Amino acid sequence: MRAEIVSIGTEIMFGEITDTNASYIAGQLPQYGIDLLWVTQVGDNPARLTEALKRALDRSDYIFTTGGLGPTEDDITREMVGAAMGEELFVDPEQEALLRANFARRGIDPMPPRNIKQAMRIPSARVLENPRGTAPGWWVERDGKVIVVMPGPPAETHHMWETLVAPELERRADAILVSRTLKTVGLGEAALDEALTSVLSGTNPSIGTYARADGVALRLAAKAKTREEAQALIAPVEAEIRRLIPGAIWGVDDDSMSAGVGRMLREQGLTLGLMESASGGAIASAITDVDGSSDYFRGGIVSYATEVKTMYGVPAETIATHGLYSRETAEAMAKAARVALKSDLGLGLTGIAGNEPLEGQPAGTMHLALADADNVEYMTFRFLQGREQTKRRAVQQALILLRKYLIERAAKGTH
Amino acid sequence: MRAEIVSIGTEIMFGEITDTNASYIAGQLPQYGIDLLWVTQVGDNPARLTEALKRALDRSDYIFTTGGLGPTEDDITREMVGAAMGEELFVDPEQEALLRANFARRGIDPMPPRNIKQAMRIPSARVLENPRGTAPGWWVERDGKVIVVMPGPPAETHHMWETLVAPELERRADAILVSRTLKTVGLGEAALDEALTSVLSGTNPSIGTYARADGVALRLAAKAKTREEAQALIAPVEAEIRRLIPGAIWGVDDDSMSAGVGRMLREQGLTLGLMESASGGAIASAITDVDGSSDYFRGGIVSYATEVKTMYGVPAETIATHGLYSRETAEAMAKAARVALKSDLGLGLTGIAGNEPLEGQPAGTMHLALADADNVEYMTFRFLQGREQTKRRAVQQALILLRKYLIERAAKGTH
Repeated sequence: MRAEIVSIGTEIMFGEITDTNASYIAGQLPQYGIDLLWVTQVGDNPARLTEALKRALDRSDYIFTTGGLGPTEDDITREMVGAAMGEELFVDPEQEALLRANFARRGIDPMPPRNIKQAMRIPSARVLENPRGTAPGWWVERDGKVIVVMPGPPAETHHMWETLVAPELERRADAILVSRTLKTVGLGEAALDEALTSVLSGTNPSIGTYARADGVALRLAAKAKTREEAQALIAPVEAEIRRLIPGAIWGVDDDSMSAGVGRMLREQGLTLGLMESASGGAIASAITDVDGSSDYFRGGIVSYATEVKTMYGVPAETIATHGLYSRETAEAMAKAARVALKSDLGLGLTGIAGNEPLEGQPAGTMHLALADADNVEYMTFRFLQGREQTKRRAVQQALILLRKYLIERAAKGTH
Repeated sequence: MRAEIVSIGTEIMFGEITDTNASYIAGQLPQYGIDLLWVTQVGDNPARLTEALKRALDRSDYIFTTGGLGPTEDDITREMVGAAMGEELFVDPEQEALLRANFARRGIDPMPPRNIKQAMRIPSARVLENPRGTAPGWWVERDGKVIVVMPGPPAETHHMWETLVAPELERRADAILVSRTLKTVGLGEAALDEALTSVLSGTNPSIGTYARADGVALRLAAKAKTREEAQALIAPVEAEIRRLIPGAIWGVDDDSMSAGVGRMLREQGLTLGLMESASGGAIASAITDVDGSSDYFRGGIVSYATEVKTMYGVPAETIATHGLYSRETAEAMAKAARVALKSDLGLGLTGIAGNEPLEGQPAGTMHLALADADNVEYMTFRFLQGREQTKRRAVQQALILLRKYLIERAAKGTH
């Protein structure tokens, strides 16, 4: 099956929004055995939209459109899909009733007349409910071609996809491809290949290794008649991999590093406190992006002003002797964080997030330390690509330091 | 002039990356009077890429491509642009020397043989240097058509655009459209229309009003032969607007709310300290995304554990009497932040970022307070769309509260 996405909206043509719906849909299609060959973005222009839809009908089996379902005159997707299919639009009485009820519920009664457009469909369209907005979608099917018409706002599109479109594609698929990603750290691609020789030759699931910013990922992909069968093929292979590389897997699928670190903190019964300056609260924010982080995260001090560091336990002499941006100050911050937040582990970060060198050190220099009751680990790095990127990298390095500590601690069996 | 963007890469078709280059370029084109009519995304596939390029050459004057300039066999953009133009590729000796020197500088000597591809061009292509990567771009021009061939990584594309492509487009433009956005708050669209009647009828610059999440934006757009002339048309109108709505403008163009709040804090000579729990450091992080924020930001306490709140000045009785998620606790946190961070203003936030109700309050409930030496302002809101979105909204509300306070303070002339 060949698919094409047509993303519709003049605001895309002006660069006012980035079309994230296309990449969302693109990422979903492989599991149903559908090949995405084209994405076309086009404004709310009758001639060009018609051209795009006609071409898509010529060369693709499935066409997914997003956008252009609003109530204004600019919103012409319904009309143009109707024209491309050679069908007339009519008001669907059931949809009209739902739409009027929707407006009444929101205290808008009577419904603005122009919204009646949103209750229209063509004969070969089945309505896709949109509980997150006023514009329902369409599942249009005729002569072996399918056009799935969805709204533009990503929250509405995702919901419609998950609840109505994906299940239908799954019912129609000859085979389902399920993939599961195991995220590892501490072993390079070559070492992983060696450790996993006995399973790597399998074909269902196939196993691929990919070097990523957060470590090497193993992707297991299995094909079967149903999702359950595919998952059942993956499970024993995953178990065997976990046996072969104990402790190296820190997360699965979309797990963020902060989720992986959080899981290990919880498993090891440890709490964490922070004292961060250059990262300005971004480390704390990443850690608290994880549900249940209050189980292990005590809190943090964002010690932006130097005085805040000394008020909360960094000796003024350390800063005076070694400088604000130094190994010694980072280590003192890590130790102070443990005390100030009454946590098992303390993480300290100091550095230069701005674009100017300070204290004779280049912009982007960061000093990081992690303290437990007995020891302090330290690392430094330099990264400069603007303040926000530099902060993001600081968060990543902090999580890497934590993850390394927790994996080593688990391997030692300290807990 | 009609333009088309062709974004190239199989990873786009698998949804592994979102094509942000297209929206970046789309946002740049209007100022040169170039109309973007089409964006096509296509994989690294010879037949489909050729089809896309031929169609683009048929219907557009300018074609901007990104991606497919790497050294591997998959990277076929150069070859396909050559084929679409009917020209042969050859190794440009000057580019070869540069490329070899680039590799030698990075300690890779000799250069891997396959990279020689990146030194190739066609006769009608002029090379666009790429100091951020190994793949130079091309400016291809013949028979009234222009193809601008750029690499895929956004950092490389943006740099090439800013340094080489944009200046060339500006030289060729008959007129330059410069726009400037003034970000306002406190006045609705109707009130703004009334206050600005005397300037709104102007046509160069034209003035549009747009309701945005962070307030009503005024967009001034002027057209002139040169950028300088266009800017000179905007300046007096902007000055008049600032005179007509004193204090209502909190930022310009891409200013974030945290930048706007930061500017007001600096102007009013005030410092800020935070105590945040549900937002988990995200408010501090937003404030420190701004260059120079150390001028006014003292720091923050991320009081995730309840004990951290009481350790740093929130009376245990307040929490016991009113609950963790309450107006009283938020106000106590704001006051405690002022003391704990020795700041002029203290901001406190407590609430429920997770998906479960707590203390009889629905998930997503937030309590926010802002304290100065004399008073405490309070607001509450509820927003639930997953933890990360809820945190982001909490940051926005905190900045709104701060902005409102600072605008009112400026209007009163307290500083």
